Amino acid sequence: MRSKKKLTSLWLENEKIKIIDQTKLPFKLSILNLKNLSDYISAINEMKVRGAPLIGVTAAFGLAESIKKDPNNKNIESSYKKLLETRPTAVNLKWALDKIKTEVLQYNIQKRANIAFNIAKNIRKNDIEYCKRIGEHGYQIIKNLYNKKKRTINILTHCNAGWLAAIDWGTAIAPIYMSFKKKIPIHIWVDETRPRNQGALLTAWELEQEKIPYTVIVDNAGGYLMQKGDVDLCIVGSDRTAMNGDVCNKIGTYLKAISAYENKIPFFVALPISTFDKNSRSGNDIPIENRSSKEITHIKYLKNNKFLESKIFLNSQKFSNPAFDITPSKYITKLITNRGIINPNTQSIKKVMKS
Amino acid sequence: MRSKKKLTSLWLENEKIKIIDQTKLPFKLSILNLKNLSDYISAINEMKVRGAPLIGVTAAFGLAESIKKDPNNKNIESSYKKLLETRPTAVNLKWALDKIKTEVLQYNIQKRANIAFNIAKNIRKNDIEYCKRIGEHGYQIIKNLYNKKKRTINILTHCNAGWLAAIDWGTAIAPIYMSFKKKIPIHIWVDETRPRNQGALLTAWELEQEKIPYTVIVDNAGGYLMQKGDVDLCIVGSDRTAMNGDVCNKIGTYLKAISAYENKIPFFVALPISTFDKNSRSGNDIPIENRSSKEITHIKYLKNNKFLESKIFLNSQKFSNPAFDITPSKYITKLITNRGIINPNTQSIKKVMKS
Repeated sequence: MRSKKKLTSLWLENEKIKIIDQTKLPFKLSILNLKNLSDYISAINEMKVRGAPLIGVTAAFGLAESIKKDPNNKNIESSYKKLLETRPTAVNLKWALDKIKTEVLQYNIQKRANIAFNIAKNIRKNDIEYCKRIGEHGYQIIKNLYNKKKRTINILTHCNAGWLAAIDWGTAIAPIYMSFKKKIPIHIWVDETRPRNQGALLTAWELEQEKIPYTVIVDNAGGYLMQKGDVDLCIVGSDRTAMNGDVCNKIGTYLKAISAYENKIPFFVALPISTFDKNSRSGNDIPIENRSSKEITHIKYLKNNKFLESKIFLNSQKFSNPAFDITPSKYITKLITNRGIINPNTQSIKKVMKS
Repeated sequence: MRSKKKLTSLWLENEKIKIIDQTKLPFKLSILNLKNLSDYISAINEMKVRGAPLIGVTAAFGLAESIKKDPNNKNIESSYKKLLETRPTAVNLKWALDKIKTEVLQYNIQKRANIAFNIAKNIRKNDIEYCKRIGEHGYQIIKNLYNKKKRTINILTHCNAGWLAAIDWGTAIAPIYMSFKKKIPIHIWVDETRPRNQGALLTAWELEQEKIPYTVIVDNAGGYLMQKGDVDLCIVGSDRTAMNGDVCNKIGTYLKAISAYENKIPFFVALPISTFDKNSRSGNDIPIENRSSKEITHIKYLKNNKFLESKIFLNSQKFSNPAFDITPSKYITKLITNRGIINPNTQSIKKVMKS
């Protein structure tokens, strides 16, 4: 596993759900209890938890918690709807909620809470296992490249798709953890990832914990590094993957993918198969969330041990803040799934989903 | 001209050189006097003045000022060297310094200061004229596109290549000013431009002053907007242009250029011909400045009317901060120069330099 002091992004402690408040990282490791449905909703909305797999697990426990309080159909439907509305792009959210709702509605009221919690626990447990497998499959790619190049392998990643975005291991970072564990010399280029800086704040923190060599760069710098030959491969995660292999991921992913393509650098997307959306034929079918311009205009920092937020731009200014973009499958070398490495096309995706 | 209340980025007032301290914008309009050579050097180093054309003009006045104090060859050579070392990438710096040094060394000591100041004043005056011409040539492109589309033209720009980067008009923004003046409906997508945020801070401020519609976006968002069809053309400036048409400009320019290319959106570079470097055959010959990681880790803002700076990342983190990248000529539609619109290739560049 990653390290001795084992922390995951969401866990049960005496039947209570605990999360790391990721909006405080890396400045403070703040642990929160999630109790009511409203806690779960605000945790997802305010991005105390984020990352497609973790959003799915959190929503599952949120729905289970709500069912425990009121197992009637009406409450299940309304809680389902409220949780689903928190984030429109990540599809694991819907996938996890559907899994619970479909199942519990088949049982009588007394049994529902128990079933819901068991499914949620199972989703959490499976997520760890799936991410570990992504790590094992992705490791093969990095190992092969290392055997060819016989020097440190430079990997660029965008946003945070580490264990903080899942439960453990992560998606894009799982192959990195696995390679480091197996002593392959690696160095990670971490995109800052404006506007929320998940790369500089979360990915860098994760890598720092494990002592994996990394360098944070602004999002503008990746193309230049690729041109210079300083990037051997890219790995990113996915918030939703269309059936034709188009990948929806954090805004800016597309720019890195086309740059990798132009520079003949392999570009991989690592994802659990719950990220495939059978209702999205192509990236055009995926809704892109627009978030508050406050994410651009304000910045958080620690000063004299106080956690502060300041406005860095002017009131008069106008902003637009799309949170995701679509990378057409054309620019993607392979998809690294928990069920193996596949081509980003409809046939391969259908096949792996059935397997 | 741009507006009634006429301000330029550097001017003479009672034979004193004044600049706007651009590190304080848009929070404070702070005017500084440059007196000694060291004032000029720190103004360029600390980016109180920035932008290739303005760096050239500032360096010219800095050398003239130093020659006034000591017109001997030894001082001229050492001042030339010190000024040249301030920024390695922008070629206008060398171009302006060479112009003065070559000329004054032909004259006896008594005449040198006067000659140097006259050349510096001339460079400043010409820069305004050249930028205005860039505006006129670029306006034709925007006008033609408007005549075809008959709706608001959306223009994406990166960093700041407005009047703050030159003396007046600017390079990339000159066609925008000219089009707005001539009532063509335009809207500008302003890249935030990490790490120094010259787009969000300076370009947005310039456009706000003139009431030109604009929206600030993070650097990650431009590709997504291009995919959606929300960008009609891109215009950027250049810090140095190689003889084969490769353009060195603010880090991140390359990513926007390849995205425009992939989406079949015209990508223009606006530049005075002093930006061509006859010693750079291609972009490979252009040195890329690496700047302090403090530009990434610290951020400035105004709070309770105080100008503050805070650290937004952790001490333990590692950063790399290349300030420019190279956009190969393949991705550039046309170069908009003060002598007309040309193709980005050696033949056209040689021809326009001679004309």
